[in-house]
Amino acid sequence: MTKNIDELVAHLKDMGFVFQGSEIYGGLANSWDYGPLGVAIKNNLKQLWWSYFVSKNPLNVGIDSSIILNTNVWKSSGHLSGFNDLLIECKTCHSRYRVDKLIEAFDPSFAWAKLSIPELADYIKSQKLPCPNCGSHNFSEIRQFTLMFKTNQGVIESEKSTVYLRPETAQGIFINFKNVQRSQRKKLPFGVGQIGKAFRNEITPGNFIFRTREFEQMELEFFYNPEDEKDWFVYWMNQVETFLAQRVGLNPKNYRLHEIPKDDLAHYSKRTIDFEYHFPFGWEELWGLAHRGVFDLTAHQNGSGADLTYLEPTKNQKILAEVIEPSVGVERLLLAIFCEAFTKEKLANGEERIVMKLPTKLAPYQVAVLPLQKQQKLAASELFETLLTNFNATYDETGNIGKRYRRQDAIGTPLIVTYDFDSAVDHQVTVRHRDTMSQERVAISELDTYLRKYL
Amino acid sequence: MTKNIDELVAHLKDMGFVFQGSEIYGGLANSWDYGPLGVAIKNNLKQLWWSYFVSKNPLNVGIDSSIILNTNVWKSSGHLSGFNDLLIECKTCHSRYRVDKLIEAFDPSFAWAKLSIPELADYIKSQKLPCPNCGSHNFSEIRQFTLMFKTNQGVIESEKSTVYLRPETAQGIFINFKNVQRSQRKKLPFGVGQIGKAFRNEITPGNFIFRTREFEQMELEFFYNPEDEKDWFVYWMNQVETFLAQRVGLNPKNYRLHEIPKDDLAHYSKRTIDFEYHFPFGWEELWGLAHRGVFDLTAHQNGSGADLTYLEPTKNQKILAEVIEPSVGVERLLLAIFCEAFTKEKLANGEERIVMKLPTKLAPYQVAVLPLQKQQKLAASELFETLLTNFNATYDETGNIGKRYRRQDAIGTPLIVTYDFDSAVDHQVTVRHRDTMSQERVAISELDTYLRKYL
Repeated sequence: MTKNIDELVAHLKDMGFVFQGSEIYGGLANSWDYGPLGVAIKNNLKQLWWSYFVSKNPLNVGIDSSIILNTNVWKSSGHLSGFNDLLIECKTCHSRYRVDKLIEAFDPSFAWAKLSIPELADYIKSQKLPCPNCGSHNFSEIRQFTLMFKTNQGVIESEKSTVYLRPETAQGIFINFKNVQRSQRKKLPFGVGQIGKAFRNEITPGNFIFRTREFEQMELEFFYNPEDEKDWFVYWMNQVETFLAQRVGLNPKNYRLHEIPKDDLAHYSKRTIDFEYHFPFGWEELWGLAHRGVFDLTAHQNGSGADLTYLEPTKNQKILAEVIEPSVGVERLLLAIFCEAFTKEKLANGEERIVMKLPTKLAPYQVAVLPLQKQQKLAASELFETLLTNFNATYDETGNIGKRYRRQDAIGTPLIVTYDFDSAVDHQVTVRHRDTMSQERVAISELDTYLRKYL
Repeated sequence: MTKNIDELVAHLKDMGFVFQGSEIYGGLANSWDYGPLGVAIKNNLKQLWWSYFVSKNPLNVGIDSSIILNTNVWKSSGHLSGFNDLLIECKTCHSRYRVDKLIEAFDPSFAWAKLSIPELADYIKSQKLPCPNCGSHNFSEIRQFTLMFKTNQGVIESEKSTVYLRPETAQGIFINFKNVQRSQRKKLPFGVGQIGKAFRNEITPGNFIFRTREFEQMELEFFYNPEDEKDWFVYWMNQVETFLAQRVGLNPKNYRLHEIPKDDLAHYSKRTIDFEYHFPFGWEELWGLAHRGVFDLTAHQNGSGADLTYLEPTKNQKILAEVIEPSVGVERLLLAIFCEAFTKEKLANGEERIVMKLPTKLAPYQVAVLPLQKQQKLAASELFETLLTNFNATYDETGNIGKRYRRQDAIGTPLIVTYDFDSAVDHQVTVRHRDTMSQERVAISELDTYLRKYL
């Protein structure tokens, strides 16, 4: 993967996919806004996920829970006490570091994960770890830094009114397990999917839209009877892979499965596999698939006092459902899609073109309508408005035709319809294909059928 | 409008449209979660709006900006200093009130809007306004209470790291005006639409999902040359009305236009019309249409130092675009739709049925597949999975057929397909229509075409 991330970021900005957040005010660290093309592809991606994992899966349903939940939800889930990064400060230059990153930079092979806070402090002291910024050995105590954004709801600022922005959408599903099961009269197994914003006050966000403090998750919690003989973990592993390869169109060479070793599993997980993608900055987690067992429903049953068991009808027994969770970030998956699609090609005439080779279901526009020259503007724009009824269409009349082709290539439009001198006479238009650049003459009366065939 | 809001809320909960937020933890004041049917209709509504106001409108494009913006955005927009409610507390019983609501309850005709804080305090004292809760005349000073949720980003809690959750999606559009215009090479007039969450720490939220602290907006900012002869305010007024009447299917008797008198206009507005809906709790604002002039672009140009003018190509002149803003809350519009659809009917046999008479484009499911008896479960569920490819379909095999019909009526499914004894032999199914309850026998091979015709 030799693709250059800076070049990609500049391209995405120029074309109107992704802008720096609050740019005219000098930006806001690690925040990005999605322009007209960005929101279009994001919506397409979310719809693709929703359709595949929720609405078209006969077992599953969806939900949309609040971003701000009762604070006791985070007590029970363990986020209030455990969703922390360990933070250390250089007392000389006041740089702040995540302890794990500091140690990894010093000795990538050192197994710090199982150490307690005092043991980590001992290690940093005894090994004389230097401050990566100023080189001094003058670190503060290690302190825990909660990753949850805190705010106050209501008219009194007090501990009682403290609420948090959710750091994941999953808990909103668990606390509604019974409401969903009962209202939909669902039998196990069934899944509940959710798409929505989550917030993590990361100490070291970065790599463009790979890790941001504000992000969007697409999560499915799949509930099943522990006695079910089917291996639902493998089932969802295959579903994720099919989605990545066949819907999103990732090249299998660019992603791999990484099984988390038993010793490194999070406390709630019985098994976890990460789908990793070969980003320009290395292999990184793209999509996590976790076997969460009965951890979450147990935690919320204990924390709330509510009965979250399921009455198994054949044995008339109350059981707790086990959970498999495929969870992916919209922006992170989008970045993989951008990396995959961003292509530079040498043309026969020696020029270079940038093509976003996006799958047709994801491209911001399916088809562009261009008048060849200004005499055809009226007819072409009328054709554009007709096509809008059935397709995601765009219209471009500015600049010479070669530049307009390049521009549509650069934003990933699969098909271009050009209305030219002859069109008014022979009632035909030229259709150009993005990837092959081949052109075909098509009767306007056949255009709808032709486009449907390719889209 | 005699519809009972409590009855509606109970129905929406039972069926799985809307649950109390964080219910198993005793709830969180004024928060609601959307169940499987709620998220389905919400998604349908958002897609309908997006398609009508953004993607299918040849002039407009979309955007998706961050919830957390640079704090200077709120300085320039005026929200930091001006987006407040005036709050007063009874020092005897410690109840808190919005000053405007307190005065309105005492004298609905009193014109308090133009009074300063000292004048309001004088009025409350001289008129001896009683505390609505305990009756005493023992009020605190009036203080300003900001409606924006405040939090901290980054690892230091300080004034510098203070950020706010956006109280509206509009500002994310204004600050990206130039990025959008330039990257899409847009000419005036054009609009930029956005759907997304916004947060207001309301002192008196309420009326179910009518006014909530966390809510979702659908906003369009339409930019045009002030010299444009077309009356874009009237154009968008008609667009909103057409959308309400023809897409959302509101009965024109249940909404009305309210022109805000010149004296009552917000400081940024040259003209505002509210579409009001006849909710069970009275006529209330549903959709605001505001002429914002050049207020916002001027404010951000002054605040950021960026050039937000538009180069008018025919005269080669830099101008500031004027703005028309149609703005509506997803949940508020959804509540109007729920109120409109919720119907009780006496049947011929004396029983009562509840029907959600939702437009087919909004209903959570377009079609339900039911086996008449358990012998047909396999064939019916196979038919369901086939229909899933092209339709939003659901499947129900539990309970007697009459109850299952009632249930589909109660969630608003327009068509029900029943697979019965004869279906395996004659390859036909019965299709039942929600509103008329009429039934028709349709060949399975013709079913796709038949359903498309009605949906």
